[in-house]
Parts: sequence; structure tokens; C-alpha cells
Amino acid sequence: MTDKIRIGIAGYGNLGKGVEIAIQENADMELTAIFSKRYDLTKLNHPCKDKIFDAADAHKFKDIIDIMILCGGSSKDLPGQGPLYASMFNTVDGYDNHGNIPNYYNAMNKAATDNGNISVVCAGWDPGLFSINRVLFESIMPQGKSYTFWGPGVSQGHSDALRKIPGVKKAIQYTIPVEDNLGKIKKGGTPVLSIREKHKRECYVVIEEHADKEGIRKSIITMPNYFADYDTNVNFISEEEFVKNHSKMFHGGTVIRNGKTGTDPSNDQALSFSLNLGSNSEFTASVLTAYARAAYRLKKKGCSGAKTVFDIPLKYLSNKTLDELCKELL
Amino acid sequence: MTDKIRIGIAGYGNLGKGVEIAIQENADMELTAIFSKRYDLTKLNHPCKDKIFDAADAHKFKDIIDIMILCGGSSKDLPGQGPLYASMFNTVDGYDNHGNIPNYYNAMNKAATDNGNISVVCAGWDPGLFSINRVLFESIMPQGKSYTFWGPGVSQGHSDALRKIPGVKKAIQYTIPVEDNLGKIKKGGTPVLSIREKHKRECYVVIEEHADKEGIRKSIITMPNYFADYDTNVNFISEEEFVKNHSKMFHGGTVIRNGKTGTDPSNDQALSFSLNLGSNSEFTASVLTAYARAAYRLKKKGCSGAKTVFDIPLKYLSNKTLDELCKELL
Repeated sequence: MTDKIRIGIAGYGNLGKGVEIAIQENADMELTAIFSKRYDLTKLNHPCKDKIFDAADAHKFKDIIDIMILCGGSSKDLPGQGPLYASMFNTVDGYDNHGNIPNYYNAMNKAATDNGNISVVCAGWDPGLFSINRVLFESIMPQGKSYTFWGPGVSQGHSDALRKIPGVKKAIQYTIPVEDNLGKIKKGGTPVLSIREKHKRECYVVIEEHADKEGIRKSIITMPNYFADYDTNVNFISEEEFVKNHSKMFHGGTVIRNGKTGTDPSNDQALSFSLNLGSNSEFTASVLTAYARAAYRLKKKGCSGAKTVFDIPLKYLSNKTLDELCKELL
Repeated sequence: MTDKIRIGIAGYGNLGKGVEIAIQENADMELTAIFSKRYDLTKLNHPCKDKIFDAADAHKFKDIIDIMILCGGSSKDLPGQGPLYASMFNTVDGYDNHGNIPNYYNAMNKAATDNGNISVVCAGWDPGLFSINRVLFESIMPQGKSYTFWGPGVSQGHSDALRKIPGVKKAIQYTIPVEDNLGKIKKGGTPVLSIREKHKRECYVVIEEHADKEGIRKSIITMPNYFADYDTNVNFISEEEFVKNHSKMFHGGTVIRNGKTGTDPSNDQALSFSLNLGSNSEFTASVLTAYARAAYRLKKKGCSGAKTVFDIPLKYLSNKTLDELCKELL
């Protein structure tokens, strides 16, 4: 018997591995099982080898996992896996397909509610921590303008889009805030900015031998949604340089709100929240892991259904008691 | 009849005036009454004149004020006023005497609980927004070090301490982060810093004619708790210069946590939250006003007793529905 929160990990890519690391940093948690479709379990040489199971067997763990952290991708994995897991387990995920959040929320809410489980959804850093600050800032200072800048950092979605172009062997895309405009906003301005004025896109691409370099460049810079609306720079590099200089998955960004209170023109008020992340996946995993604690506590209090970061009192994220929080951190 | 949240303001100094302004920015609220001990109500020439009442009559407003925002000072007013108001009204305050928070919380919790009211305590920016981020940061990244820097800005408590010295006519104190050390931390370092290494104190003092300048300087720089542990610079200036250049009550600060996830030494993660406030009192008032909305909603849900920023789901701060928040800001 244990008093620790028993965590399951569904999906064993970078995010799942990040959760595995995060659990070790939290003394009140333990890793119970990892579920994967990808690994040949018999060939695995891994310290947690005996905790890795086929995803098809997850249902057998219903009674010994308190919280399942969903680490699949938002585009292909979570829309199906999410509700399935939510029907069996309390779950936490970092679903990040912004446009589809209401649909995902509804599907998760139904699956969780029908089965008396709790599902914390969209609890990474954006959506997640950035969303918290967008709501906090707007609620406190209605008269003002909010901005979200991402990067400098690696966008997985845009890197994937590059890799799907025929002739592209390896590719990575860095999202970079337009420094001049970010600087103006950091000084308190409230300009209206187009998509192009907020971020630019730097692509580093390794192509197959004899591939059509100019054709690939054109495919990239004209790609709708991903690149066409941005100043996009395409750099063709060797595979050697790619491996050497482009393997870090760093990211970050800033939420800023500039506004004013009252009528005195010098009463400008500026609020900002920033992340500077050496490892995007490990950080996202750490946020999910903290929300796993919150999910565990909400379940103990009898809650069920889907919950967002807007629904969850912050005290549930911490391993400290409310008394300790009030003494030490309030 | 109105559907708006009916707000009372208890205490009509800078903070109370800030709340009066903030209510105008929030379409779902209206100002019902202001309570003051200080004003000669018959001599008042003020647009809200007919809404200002003697604090002794507050009890007559029990049924027509939804939330009373307490705008008295933390050292002298709130310890007595807080529980008294909490026995009659739902309240919100920004009590900020950090060392005494547990006692204040307990007194407010008892008064509110005994009378079926809700009392949101310590809900300004520090304690308040900074506390939220300290808990969020530590919960997400247990392996790391947190820092709180205040300023550059005016400390009311330290300015008051200066003004109590015999021979001092006017005085203001600016709290200033030690730029070199803040810079190191912004770059990701985790040094251990003494009190002196974090902040310095700049005092601007107008003295009475013939007052003992060097004696006053010595009284300031040796004053325990307030100045003795800091590099303190005392500037004696004319009253004219004081009025011209030292009337802005700006403030701000930063909560930073630097840490790492996992074992890769390059996986540094840095989180920060910053405020840059043209008017400290108007901003604090805006935070209290947003928490007044939260108090109103919590009361409607049947809650009572004292609540901190750690207890309150962020959705209750916003005038938007959860659906709107999920669509627009998640």
C-alpha cells in the first residue's frame, strides 16, 4: 500500500518521457505504468522497462492508477485516445489545438462525467499557464490590450509541416517574435499588429540529394496558415550541421497586457508573464504533473467531468497545505 | 432593481478612490456607498457626494451591498475593521502585513463563517498576484529557486517610517532592485542573495528649518528592519523639488523562478511574472475589484468563510462565461 499518487503515462514520446522525469521531482507521486503502442516491449533496455505496457492493456490498470497523464499528440492521438482514457481513468492532458478546444472539451466532459472521472484538459503552458494569465490580466484591467508572443523557440507543428514537403529530409522551424514590435509593447505601447508584425519564421532544412531547392523554398513560403502570412526565411543546411546545431527543443514566450486605470494619462499599468524554456516537452510535462495532483485532489472531493485551468484553485497544484502556503508563499 | 453587483467601499483614501474608478471599468458592477470616518460629509464637493456615508452607519446597508471592499490600512485599520465588516458583509481586502497573515486570516474566517459571509483576504498584488505565481512556479518546478524583487517603486511603509522621524517634514522612499543581481537572475542564475544584495533604498527627505540633518541621516540608515539591513541613500531636497518630482506613487516588481527539469544541464527553465505600475493604489484597487466579482459568485454558490487567492478558481474573476473563456482565452 502506498499513500502516493499513482500516475500512469499514456504515450511515450518526448512528453511522456518528460512526465517520467517530473514524477521523480514530486515526492508525493509514483510512476505506476507507461502505455505505449510504439515500443517493442521485448527489446526494450530501459530502467523502467518493467513498467511499460501495451496501450491495449491499459484497462487492466483501472484500479491501480489514480491519474493517467495523456501524452499523445493533439492532432492525431488525443481526439480518439482522450475520451477513451477518460472513460476509464482520471486524466490530465495538454491538448493544444486551440481552434478545436470546445469540441475536445465537450467530448472529454461527456466521457469523464458518464464514468465519474475527472479530466483536466489543455493544461500545458499554452493553452494552460498563458491562458491563466490572459484571464487574470483582462479581468483585473478591462481597459487595455493583451498580446501573446511565442518564441524564440521550436514549433513542432511547423517543423512537421516542413518535413511533409517532398524532397525534405530533415527540418526544424523557429518561431521568433518581431523584436522591434515586442520591444515597443514591452515599453507600454498598445499598437494593433498584424500576424506578420508579431512573429517571423526561420526554417532550417536538409534536402534529399538532387531535390528542387527553389521549388521547396516556394512550397514553404507560400504554405497557407503555416508560413504564407509571415516573413519566412528558409535556410538550406547540411545534415551534419543540422544534427550539430538544431537538436535543442527550446521554446518560450510572453503574455503582456498594457493598459491604464482611471483618467491620469501617466497611470499606465503593464503586466507580463514570461517563460524561457530549455526543454519545451519537459516543462510541459512538469505542468501536466502538477495538474495531476490537482486532479487527484478534486476527485477526492467528489468532483467529476472536464476541468480547465480556469476551474481549478491553485492550492490544489501544490504539495503544501493551505496553512503552509499562507505562511510561506502568500 | 438591478442585476449588477452592488459594491461598498470602506475607507476613502487612495485605495478607496482607486476602487471607485475601477467599478466604472466593470459593466457588471455599481457603486452603492462609500464609508469614511475622515470626511466632513456636509462640506464635501464630490460627484459621488451623495454616496458617501459615515462608517458608523455601514450596518444600515447590510441588505443593499453585495460586496464591501475594505480599503483601510493593514497596520491600523484592517485588524479591527476587517472582522467587524466581515460580520456584516461579504468582503474583499488587500491585507498586506505578511508576518501577521495567519492571525488576520483566522480572525476574518471566524467573523465571516459565523455570519454566513465570504471574505476574500490578501488579494492585492503582493500578497495576491505575486503569491499566485510563487505557488504556481514552485508547484510546477520543484527543483529550482524563486525570487521576489520589488520596485523600482514607492514603499508606503518606508515613507511613513521616514515621516515619523522628528525634524522630517516630507519624505518618500523608493525601493530599487539591485540591478546587477536582478540581471544575473534574469539570465537564469540561482545565487543565494542577502537582503542587502536584493534591494537598495533611496530616500528623498524635506526637513524642518534648523533640523539636524546628519542626525536625521543617521536615524534613517540605522533604523532596524526598515533601513539598517540595506544600502540606504538619503537625499535632502527642497519642498519645492519634492512636490514637483516626487508625487507619483508608481511601483512594481518581479517574481522569478529559475530551475531545471531532468538531468540535461542545458534544460534550464525560467518563469517570470512582472508588474510595472504607474499607480500602485489604482492597480491594487483593480485587483480587489476583480476579486469582488469572485466573492459575489462564490457567495452565490453557497460558500462562506475566508478565502485566499489560492482558493479561488480564476474563472470567477472574469465577467465572461466559462464557454467564452475557453473559446477566446484558453
